[in-house]
Amino acid sequence: MKPDKILLDHGSGGKMSHLLISEMIMPIFDNPVLSKADDGAILDILGKKVAFSTDSFVVDPLFFPGGNIGDLAVNGTVNDLVVCGASPLCMSVALIIEEGFPAADLETILQSMNAAAKAVGIQIVTGDTKVVPKGAADKLFINTSGIGWIPEHVEAGADRVKPGDLILLSGAIAEHGMTILTQRQGLKFDAPLFSDTAPLHHIVKRMVMVSRKVHAMRDLTRGGLGTALNEIAEKSGVGMKIYEDKIPVKPEVMGVCELLGFDPLYVANEGKLIAFVAAEGADAVLSAMKRDKLGKDACIIGEVTDEHPKKIYMTTRIGGSRIVDMLAGDQLPRIC
Amino acid sequence: MKPDKILLDHGSGGKMSHLLISEMIMPIFDNPVLSKADDGAILDILGKKVAFSTDSFVVDPLFFPGGNIGDLAVNGTVNDLVVCGASPLCMSVALIIEEGFPAADLETILQSMNAAAKAVGIQIVTGDTKVVPKGAADKLFINTSGIGWIPEHVEAGADRVKPGDLILLSGAIAEHGMTILTQRQGLKFDAPLFSDTAPLHHIVKRMVMVSRKVHAMRDLTRGGLGTALNEIAEKSGVGMKIYEDKIPVKPEVMGVCELLGFDPLYVANEGKLIAFVAAEGADAVLSAMKRDKLGKDACIIGEVTDEHPKKIYMTTRIGGSRIVDMLAGDQLPRIC
Repeated sequence: MKPDKILLDHGSGGKMSHLLISEMIMPIFDNPVLSKADDGAILDILGKKVAFSTDSFVVDPLFFPGGNIGDLAVNGTVNDLVVCGASPLCMSVALIIEEGFPAADLETILQSMNAAAKAVGIQIVTGDTKVVPKGAADKLFINTSGIGWIPEHVEAGADRVKPGDLILLSGAIAEHGMTILTQRQGLKFDAPLFSDTAPLHHIVKRMVMVSRKVHAMRDLTRGGLGTALNEIAEKSGVGMKIYEDKIPVKPEVMGVCELLGFDPLYVANEGKLIAFVAAEGADAVLSAMKRDKLGKDACIIGEVTDEHPKKIYMTTRIGGSRIVDMLAGDQLPRIC
Repeated sequence: MKPDKILLDHGSGGKMSHLLISEMIMPIFDNPVLSKADDGAILDILGKKVAFSTDSFVVDPLFFPGGNIGDLAVNGTVNDLVVCGASPLCMSVALIIEEGFPAADLETILQSMNAAAKAVGIQIVTGDTKVVPKGAADKLFINTSGIGWIPEHVEAGADRVKPGDLILLSGAIAEHGMTILTQRQGLKFDAPLFSDTAPLHHIVKRMVMVSRKVHAMRDLTRGGLGTALNEIAEKSGVGMKIYEDKIPVKPEVMGVCELLGFDPLYVANEGKLIAFVAAEGADAVLSAMKRDKLGKDACIIGEVTDEHPKKIYMTTRIGGSRIVDMLAGDQLPRIC
């Protein structure tokens, strides 16, 4: 059923976002590339395999422990490209600035973008700047769109996941989301939280270098691990089993989640990925991940199955079993 | 001198925008492709010449006579690609939606985007949807980024303009800007105004097909004809002479401009271009333009000169001469 109004939940990255996109947006822009709905589009441009991705960033606050909207916007699009198996080549930057925004803050943010781009070796080649009157936007929104090149031998896509694949996770979850939340609410804890914002180009390069058995990758942003697993399951028509005790969550992050009633499975990350790897390649890929500084805590959290298609079952810490659905409402608006 | 705060004038497309970009943004993202500052970046991607462009649309109102933010957003990026000499291939669409936005309006706008994309033959291949809380954005902002392919023989860039080139304009100016203004103010006139929003892919194809002497093209958006001429003059280090009586302005548009005190030279267009063509190619290009439905009123409005570098002199209707500078302040925020 179509909604009357667009609600915050439609931007959650979870079930409502999924419905908006699949029932309203996709039917309008009906085409096979868009319908694949990976993190980026995989295109044939003049005989070359290219990934193309776009993301707008509306995070509030703009500055947070571990980063700011600038590096987040660069890393976010870089990560969308690299989980398509692409090497990032170039990026656009489009700013929507609220009248009266401090120029010094803008400069700091742009410097962060530049540093983040340089760290990855992606060039910022084109841009756009709009200024809207006071009150027409909240401080600053940034869109980045990126182009990457996919080597011929790399083939990764949500529709290639198969029963028997193992599910690899690159590290502890829920750090970005809980950092933003605690900042926004002005909450202070003994063990401070930091966003995990980071570019995943290097760890992915290691992964696809050691094995051609990486069937799909996804970076875990809005909607968190739980939603990403559901999206992939839906697209490839498989089921999944995961194990709660295998999923790393740092104690300080888990503490805040428990205190505030958040399920870390649905909290956003900005520097973590999952990979679906054929069993025979999984050890090599896991070792490659662990050799990378962003993959030290990489682990296998479950497997793909042909039972219960499109459903994720999780064996809980106490040995029970529950279905992990997509995020239903929005836990947290303006997270990225 | 760097500003303390970002002002509306920084988004005008005129002199203040130019200063923000050239003195603050460019020095941070210092690289040769970005520094060319054409409407899009011209890149070598794996040995292919490709154009890449981005634009955010914040127009208010969202619906106006002649179009809406949806077709405007598609045509705007298409036009940025085609004035680089590119054939549009594919496009991304990123939405920032205010909580509570009517779903039916969103659907209408997306349908317009799809129709506009189909008319040009550009595929919408990837997207992003963010929803922000009520009051954090005004209704809807849309970013589109596009990729196009540039045939080997086409070489158009602001830095290629030479003394002796003739300046061709595709039609009457100032329609989009005055339409938006009158809508926003609720002004009614006997002769209603319509935005000229249109894709320029077809007229440009005709132009580059008949001559290899098209040195540069530019679509006339924010800042209008006056600002576009100044940008090109600055980049190529040439001077220009234009003739006021050669520049077509429809009487109903001129009437509103005069009534409200706007100079049509600085008012935005969304379906007009200027081209700089070597004298020996100008007749052929002008005839090609006139054969296109968007170029029926095409004309030669002046010439490039090696006198008074980086300055535009206009011979006025009454035979005087005045300098046409870039737009200084912002005549009209949220025009596109």
